[in-house]
Amino acid sequence: MNDPDRRVLRDDFPLLARSSHGKPLVYLDSAATSQKPQLVLDTLDRCYRLHNANVHRGVYELAAEATDLYEAAREKTARFLGAPSGQQIVFTRGTTESLNLVAFGYAMPRLQPGDEIVTTLAEHHSNLVPWQQVAKRTGARLTFLPLLPDGTLDLEAAEKKINPRTKLVTIAHVSNVLGTVHPIRRLADLAHRVGAALVVDAAQSVPQRLVDVMALDCDFLAFSGHKAYGPTGVGVLYGKREMLQRTDPLLFGGEMIDRVELTDSTWKDAPWKLEAGTPPILQAIGLGAALDYLSGIGMDRIHRAVQDLTRYAYVSLADLEGISLYGPGPGTERGDLLTFNLGDIHPHDIATVLDSEGIAVRAGHHCCQQAMRWLGVPATVRASFALYNTRADVDRLVDGLRKAKELFQA
Amino acid sequence: MNDPDRRVLRDDFPLLARSSHGKPLVYLDSAATSQKPQLVLDTLDRCYRLHNANVHRGVYELAAEATDLYEAAREKTARFLGAPSGQQIVFTRGTTESLNLVAFGYAMPRLQPGDEIVTTLAEHHSNLVPWQQVAKRTGARLTFLPLLPDGTLDLEAAEKKINPRTKLVTIAHVSNVLGTVHPIRRLADLAHRVGAALVVDAAQSVPQRLVDVMALDCDFLAFSGHKAYGPTGVGVLYGKREMLQRTDPLLFGGEMIDRVELTDSTWKDAPWKLEAGTPPILQAIGLGAALDYLSGIGMDRIHRAVQDLTRYAYVSLADLEGISLYGPGPGTERGDLLTFNLGDIHPHDIATVLDSEGIAVRAGHHCCQQAMRWLGVPATVRASFALYNTRADVDRLVDGLRKAKELFQA
Repeated sequence: MNDPDRRVLRDDFPLLARSSHGKPLVYLDSAATSQKPQLVLDTLDRCYRLHNANVHRGVYELAAEATDLYEAAREKTARFLGAPSGQQIVFTRGTTESLNLVAFGYAMPRLQPGDEIVTTLAEHHSNLVPWQQVAKRTGARLTFLPLLPDGTLDLEAAEKKINPRTKLVTIAHVSNVLGTVHPIRRLADLAHRVGAALVVDAAQSVPQRLVDVMALDCDFLAFSGHKAYGPTGVGVLYGKREMLQRTDPLLFGGEMIDRVELTDSTWKDAPWKLEAGTPPILQAIGLGAALDYLSGIGMDRIHRAVQDLTRYAYVSLADLEGISLYGPGPGTERGDLLTFNLGDIHPHDIATVLDSEGIAVRAGHHCCQQAMRWLGVPATVRASFALYNTRADVDRLVDGLRKAKELFQA
Repeated sequence: MNDPDRRVLRDDFPLLARSSHGKPLVYLDSAATSQKPQLVLDTLDRCYRLHNANVHRGVYELAAEATDLYEAAREKTARFLGAPSGQQIVFTRGTTESLNLVAFGYAMPRLQPGDEIVTTLAEHHSNLVPWQQVAKRTGARLTFLPLLPDGTLDLEAAEKKINPRTKLVTIAHVSNVLGTVHPIRRLADLAHRVGAALVVDAAQSVPQRLVDVMALDCDFLAFSGHKAYGPTGVGVLYGKREMLQRTDPLLFGGEMIDRVELTDSTWKDAPWKLEAGTPPILQAIGLGAALDYLSGIGMDRIHRAVQDLTRYAYVSLADLEGISLYGPGPGTERGDLLTFNLGDIHPHDIATVLDSEGIAVRAGHHCCQQAMRWLGVPATVRASFALYNTRADVDRLVDGLRKAKELFQA
């Protein structure tokens, strides 16, 4: 997919037609949340107008339609991830809930003092803070895979770090701050060799590249609907069948029970035992539409296109005097985002200047305070790319950064 | 508001124009989920098209707009419930998550063996099963307020049951199966007299009657967006300020942290510490629109209108030979739903016949297996009413029930 093709795709996303501060909007914050294609908005609107009912519980036509649509979204999600069936898919509120469910529902009941949970310093807080809590509550130890200066794993050190005490390895597929693409299949093999489970935070990979859970051989994988061109309010936890069965519910209530006695109850099978209460019905259906949209274009095409754009952006930004680009350099695979600082201009000042130019980027710690410490900076700017971004967007970003330099380095 | 007025309101709800099995749809399952007014659908669509961004984190215009809309929805919700400010409002996925948050975040850390959690046999599973778990894990005891034959509380017995060992009383404002309206303020006084907290499941009351948390003096109150004419995927937990502050997070990750160290972290203040990860942004904004819609009509008017319709339905159904109507009888206040059986016809058969007539009602245990045992029946039919239902809907229901009788009692 070349740049003119991407400009055509852009028309599928109504928000991108808006302006900001009187200038056409350049949206470069898709790693925080993506914009939604018309197909998703139409699906939401149509389902609220025609098929809205609670699921699983009703014998009437409308409830059967809603249930079919909801369960079809589960099957679509399974197919999209290469999972054997919808029984491997739990709908949650987002990546955060998915990872917490693994931490507290799967890991906590089986960890002992002396066990090790292995992760990295560059995880999003949602893949670090739950494990801190689990470690505190079980006496297990949190250990960190060493990173090389470019943010990639030191694989030789990782082989030693993942040892017989390791019960679980948890890592981002694509780092939301460094852009590192971690070797998931290799880590799965290392984890499984010592009987540990591998958990993948795929929030940044599922939207932009083909993720095949069978090829990755991960035990759990989490992503968010709203980052994958779907609605807010829904996320996914994929788990191998036996891993989901062995996961305890975090929330208790309707829908997830089998039999309720006066002081105790039994649960349904997974995935339903892990979905207490009315699920995010319309949001799951909307996510299904987003995945249809992506499959219609082809994840390979999307991946190649966004990677092409990210490389163009890397080269364009690297040309700016005084820029510090973090994470993997040219020649090493990286995700579709760039994190940087520009001289000693504060990242918030850069983002503010860019905002006045109609360019939306993120400035801050990106929910990765540890990664900021590792980089030795309080904050960075992050520009992230999606299938609707074009080279013109990157050129506007570069112009904006030049303006910021002029303004603050005058 | 009289019946012709309700027929006008009906036009605000696009789904109600659809037919089912070739007949105009009569939707009598609003206690499971409500239909959505055009205002909510327009708000969702407009925000996805114009104001979609992640909240709290961005310095750019679009993110500021999304944050303002999201936080404005929190303030609207506070005003709607009569809460002092948005700081008393946590956005969750629904009533189930709200009640689980109180059970595991507030109650579990402070309950001891010998303490008592007081509830009723007729609670929805979402207000029973979490407490079973908390009791099992803490050694506290779950005790049940006795119900009179019509489903109302035996208040004299309740006064004894709520004793110095009681640490928490949790009860539905309006029972989703019996229709009982419980005396919340009276229970709050009884609970507070012994230093216990009062938790209210308001899933069935907030959509149809004025709920004022200050007047009720409850410590926590939960409801679901999708039952209150808003989107699926969002719910609310109201809590008194000091109660929310004393509630531990259930989920850990982005947004809820203050400072993240390597092996430990600190949290923001409530309500934000209780909202880990990207919240259901658009759904909260959509709920705000639903509450605007309700306030625009006036909750008092809505309450009087739906009560009038429920009374009409009660009298109409009571006329059917062989009907057993459960819950409070005429002369006692009841919520806007009727639960019943018709002779020995199985509730699912009744619902199936009604479905073929285009009438949507619920059959089953209504997530209240204990209440079914208390009633001595395996299941019931439930017809529930909302502001868009009319007397013509009730007449269609009665006709459908007559048809079911003819069919099964021939």
